Amino acid sequence: MATELLCLHRPISLTHKLFRNPLPKVIQATPLTLKLRCSVSTENVSFTETETEARRSANYEPNSWDYDFLLSSDTDESIEVYKDKAKKLEAEVRREINNEKAEFLTLLELIDNVQRLGLGYRFESDIRRALDRFVSSGGFDGVTKTSLHATALSFRLLRQHGFEVSQEAFSGFKDQNGNFLENLKEDTKAILSLYEASFLALEGENILDEARVFAISHLKELSEEKIGKELAEQVNHALELPLHRRTQRLEAVWSIEAYRKKEDANQVLLELAILDYNMIQSVYQRDLRETSRWWRRVGLATKLHFAKDRLIESFYWAVGVAFEPQYSDCRNSVAKMFSFVTIIDDIYDVYGTLDELELFTDAVERWDVNAINDLPDYMKLCFLALYNTINEIAYDNLKDKGENILPYLTKAWADLCNAFLQEAKWLYNKSTPTFDDYFGNAWKSSSGPLQLIFAYFAVVQNIKKEEIENLQKYHDIISRPSHIFRLCNDLASASAEIARGETANSVSCYMRTKGISEELATESVMNLIDETCKKMNKEKLGGSLFAKPFVETAINLARQSHCTYHNGDAHTSPDELTRKRVLSVITEPILPFER
Amino acid sequence: MATELLCLHRPISLTHKLFRNPLPKVIQATPLTLKLRCSVSTENVSFTETETEARRSANYEPNSWDYDFLLSSDTDESIEVYKDKAKKLEAEVRREINNEKAEFLTLLELIDNVQRLGLGYRFESDIRRALDRFVSSGGFDGVTKTSLHATALSFRLLRQHGFEVSQEAFSGFKDQNGNFLENLKEDTKAILSLYEASFLALEGENILDEARVFAISHLKELSEEKIGKELAEQVNHALELPLHRRTQRLEAVWSIEAYRKKEDANQVLLELAILDYNMIQSVYQRDLRETSRWWRRVGLATKLHFAKDRLIESFYWAVGVAFEPQYSDCRNSVAKMFSFVTIIDDIYDVYGTLDELELFTDAVERWDVNAINDLPDYMKLCFLALYNTINEIAYDNLKDKGENILPYLTKAWADLCNAFLQEAKWLYNKSTPTFDDYFGNAWKSSSGPLQLIFAYFAVVQNIKKEEIENLQKYHDIISRPSHIFRLCNDLASASAEIARGETANSVSCYMRTKGISEELATESVMNLIDETCKKMNKEKLGGSLFAKPFVETAINLARQSHCTYHNGDAHTSPDELTRKRVLSVITEPILPFER
Repeated sequence: MATELLCLHRPISLTHKLFRNPLPKVIQATPLTLKLRCSVSTENVSFTETETEARRSANYEPNSWDYDFLLSSDTDESIEVYKDKAKKLEAEVRREINNEKAEFLTLLELIDNVQRLGLGYRFESDIRRALDRFVSSGGFDGVTKTSLHATALSFRLLRQHGFEVSQEAFSGFKDQNGNFLENLKEDTKAILSLYEASFLALEGENILDEARVFAISHLKELSEEKIGKELAEQVNHALELPLHRRTQRLEAVWSIEAYRKKEDANQVLLELAILDYNMIQSVYQRDLRETSRWWRRVGLATKLHFAKDRLIESFYWAVGVAFEPQYSDCRNSVAKMFSFVTIIDDIYDVYGTLDELELFTDAVERWDVNAINDLPDYMKLCFLALYNTINEIAYDNLKDKGENILPYLTKAWADLCNAFLQEAKWLYNKSTPTFDDYFGNAWKSSSGPLQLIFAYFAVVQNIKKEEIENLQKYHDIISRPSHIFRLCNDLASASAEIARGETANSVSCYMRTKGISEELATESVMNLIDETCKKMNKEKLGGSLFAKPFVETAINLARQSHCTYHNGDAHTSPDELTRKRVLSVITEPILPFER
Repeated sequence: MATELLCLHRPISLTHKLFRNPLPKVIQATPLTLKLRCSVSTENVSFTETETEARRSANYEPNSWDYDFLLSSDTDESIEVYKDKAKKLEAEVRREINNEKAEFLTLLELIDNVQRLGLGYRFESDIRRALDRFVSSGGFDGVTKTSLHATALSFRLLRQHGFEVSQEAFSGFKDQNGNFLENLKEDTKAILSLYEASFLALEGENILDEARVFAISHLKELSEEKIGKELAEQVNHALELPLHRRTQRLEAVWSIEAYRKKEDANQVLLELAILDYNMIQSVYQRDLRETSRWWRRVGLATKLHFAKDRLIESFYWAVGVAFEPQYSDCRNSVAKMFSFVTIIDDIYDVYGTLDELELFTDAVERWDVNAINDLPDYMKLCFLALYNTINEIAYDNLKDKGENILPYLTKAWADLCNAFLQEAKWLYNKSTPTFDDYFGNAWKSSSGPLQLIFAYFAVVQNIKKEEIENLQKYHDIISRPSHIFRLCNDLASASAEIARGETANSVSCYMRTKGISEELATESVMNLIDETCKKMNKEKLGGSLFAKPFVETAINLARQSHCTYHNGDAHTSPDELTRKRVLSVITEPILPFER
C-alpha cells in the first residue's frame, strides 16, 4: 500500500499561479508568485564558456525556479491582523493544556495533536508543566498497567521532552516467553503508537527493538478494507517515515489535512494550526525574498554553468533545520551555506583539476583575500563570493552579539574543503578507500558539521566558551546528525553510483571492505542509521552540554536528511514530489478554516 | 540683493508628507515618504556607552532623516508609462536641434535651455552635430562680429563640448584702451552670458578675467526695479554661483521653475524636462532604498554614537557627482564611501587615541581580516564593515567586468587613512604645518581622490591599464577636483575653526605662512580655487587621457563641492537650505506640466 510521502488532498497543476481559489482578504498571506520553471539565464558571458580544454560535466538539472519573484512590499500589514486572531486562539488552547481536571489520555492526545499540527513551539512550557503533572501524580505508572496506546503515547511524549522513562514500561504487554501479546494487534491505534515510540529508543534497549519489529510486521499486513481509509492513510504515512524522523513543517501540513477530516476535531486547535501555518509561511517568504535577492546579486549560478543552482532547495532544507519563525537568521545562514556547498562540491567533484582544487583549498585555509590572485578566474569569483558572505555573517554577529566568530566559520570551511579534496584525490587516483577511511572523511564532506556550526551561531544567543571548544572538536551533537546526513545521502545515490562504477559511497565501500552484496551492505548502512539515531536520542534526555534550541536544530538536520533522501536525492535531482513539498512549505497557504 | 541659493516657488513645510497636492496618477512617481526628523535609535547597546575614560566628542547634529522609509514596491510600473511619453517628446526636441534651417542664435538658445533644464544627457550627439554645423559653416566667426550675447553663449557652449575656441572672440567688444565697451551694459542678458562664459577660462586668459570683473561689477549694480523680477532672479542666481560651478540637478529644478513662467517657453521642451526630472527622481529613490537598506544593515551609525550619520547627505552628494540615470552603481558606491569617510573622519578627528589610529591605519594598509583582533571593539566593527563593503564592490566588478580592482580600492583607503593620521598627529602634537605641508596632505584627506577612484570603476565600462596607472599616481583629473573640494570645505569652516583655535585649515595655514589677515588669506584661497578651476577646464578641451564620462564625473565632484560649501558646511551641519535641496532633488517631484 505504497502511496506518496506527501499525499496532499488538493489538485496541483505545475504551471498555475500559486493561489488556486484566492483566500479571503483577511487570511490571505502576502502573495509570492513562484513560476516553477526557468532556464538558467545565459546573457552574461560566463567564465566557463571561454574554457578551451575539455572539462567533466555532470549535466545537472537546471534550477527549476524563477527568481523573478514579484517582490511584494516588505511590510506585511496582513501579519498583524492574524497575530491578534492567533493570540486569542492560543489562549484557549493553553487553557485546555493547563486544565488540571482533564483526563490524562485526553491531555496526552491533545499534546500529541498540538505537536503534530506544528504548534508545539507555542506551548513548550505548558506542555512541560502538563507532563510534569502527569509524571509526578503517578499518571505514567498508571497507564502502563492499562493501555498500550496510552503507555506508548506517554513514553514518546515524555522522552521527546527529556524525561528519563524506562523501556520496562512495555514489559507489562509481553507474554511469559517475552513476546508482545498477540491480542494487542486488534488495536491498530495502539500498534501505531508503539511503532512511533520505538524510534525514541537508546542504544541497547532491546524491548523497544522488539516492539519496532512487532509493530512493523503487523502494520504491513493491514489493508484499507480492514481498517478504513482514515486509519490506512495514518499507517501508510507512519510506515513511510516515522514521526521522530520527519521535519515539523511536512508533518504539520499532512496532519492539518488529516485532522480537518476528523468529526471530533478540536475546531479551535484546527483554526489556530491553519492560521499559524500560513503566518509562518509568510515569514519564510520574507526570508526567501532576502536570500534570493542576495543569491541574484552574488550571481554565481549564472556565471558557473557547470554547477548546480539549488538556492530554493537549500532554503527549503534550512526550513527543515530551523522552522520556528524567530530563526530567520539561521535559515538565511544555512541556506546560503548549502547553496555555496552545492556549487563548491561540483567544483571539487566535477569541474576542477586537482592542482586547482589544491589552490582553492589553500586559499580557504589562509582566508587571505589576496589569494584570489593565485586562482583561475572561475575560482576567483567563487572564492571572493564565499569570502565576502562569511565575513558578512561574522560582521552581523560582531555587531549584534559583540563576538568575533570568524575563526570558527573559516575553520569549518577549511575542514569541508579538505574533506572534498580528499575525495577528489581518491577519484583522481582511482583508489578505493576502506569503509572506515571513506566514512571518517565522508561525514565531514556531507557539510553537516559546517551547517551546524553556522546554525549554532545563528540560534544561540549567548555563546559559551565550553560549547565553542566542543563545536571545534566536532562534539557528538555535530558528528551524529552528520553521520545520518551522509548515510542517507549515500543510500539514496548508491545504486546509480555503483552502476556508474563510482567507488565513493558508504554502500560500495561496505561491500568492498566486508566482501558482501549490495543488498546486505544496504541493510548494514540502514542499521548504522538506526544505531546512530539511538545515540542521538541520548542528547535529548537532558544533560546535554548544549542548550535545547541548538540540540533540536542538530536533530532537525538529521530529520531533513531522512526526508530529502528518502525517495532518491531530492537536492541534486529535485523531482515532482520535491517541488510539491517546497510549494506546500514555502508558498502555498493551507486552505482557510471554515466552521 | 542676496536671496537663497535655491529660490523655489513652492511653499515647503518641513513636517508635511511629501506630496502637497497629489500628482495626477499618470505622472505620479513611485511614492517615497521621508519623515524629516528622527533621533538616533539607542535601543542597541553601543560600543561607546561602555567606555569609562573621557573621550572627545563633537556633539554633531543627529541624522535628520528617518530611515523607516515606506519601502514601496521595487517594481516601478509607473516608469514605463512615462518612458513612452518621454520618447515622443524627445523625438520632437531632437527634430528641433537637428533643424538645419534654424537661425543659429535660436539653435544656440535651444541648446542652452536643453542643458539648463537637465536634458543635455539625452541629446549629446545631436548637440555635438549642431555645434559642428555652427562652427564649420562659419557661424561662430559671424556672431563674434555682431552680438556679445551670441558670442558669449556660443563660446561657452563650444568650450563645454570640447571645441577649441579662442578668448580673442571677445576682443571685438573692447574699446581702443582694451576695456570692455560701456554700452554693452545696456544689454543685461549679454552681460549675464559674458559672466557665465568667463568661467570657462583657461590659465592665462586675461581677456576672460577682465570680462568676469567687468560683468560682475555691472550685475551687482542692477536692481529689480530697473530690470524686472524675472531678469533680477536670473542675475541673483548667477551671481550666487555661476552655471559652470553648479550641479546639473540643482540647476535643472531652478531652471524648470524659471522657464515655466516664460510666455514664450517651448511647451514640448518644458513637458519633457518635468517628466524627465520626475523619472530620474524615481531612479534616485530606488537607488536610495538600496543604499539605506545596506546602511541600516551595517548599523554603524547606531553603534558609534560619537560619529556623524550622513547617509542621505552622502547620497545627495553622489547624485551631484553622477546624476545620469544609468549611473546607479556610481551613486551607490560614492554614497557608501562618503558615509564611511564621514564616520572614519570622526574617529581620526574626534574619538580615537593616537595609538588606536595607528592600529586602524595599519589594519587598512595590511587589508588582512585578522587585523580585527588587534583593534579596540568600536574599531573592529568599523574596520570589518569597511572591509566587507570594499570587498563586495570588488566582487561586483570581478563578476560584471572580469577585473580584480581590489588593490586599487584598498590603496585609495590606505592613502586616505594615512592623510587622516597625519592630521591627527599635527593635532595631538599641537604643531602648525606650513600651508604647503598642510595642503599637500589636505587635498587627499578631503576624500576626493578616494571618491573619484571608486567613481572611475563604477562609471568606466572598459578599464584601461594606462588610465589605472595614472589614477594610482593621482593624475590631475583626480587631484584638481580634490583641491577644490578641500579649499571649498576649508573656506566654509575657516572662521569657526580659527575662532576655536584650530590650526588645520587652508585659511589659517595661509595666514600663518604668509603672515597676512584672515580676510586676505580668504581672498587668496578663493583665487586658488579660480586658478584650479581654470586648470580643470583644460581637461574638457579634448585630448584628456580619460573618457568623457569620467572627466565629467570628476568635474562634477568640484561642482558638488562648490554647492555644498557655498553657504557653510552643508555636509557636517545640514541646515534648512540643505534639506530643501535634498527634498527637491530626491523626493519632491516637480509639479506636473499643464498646457
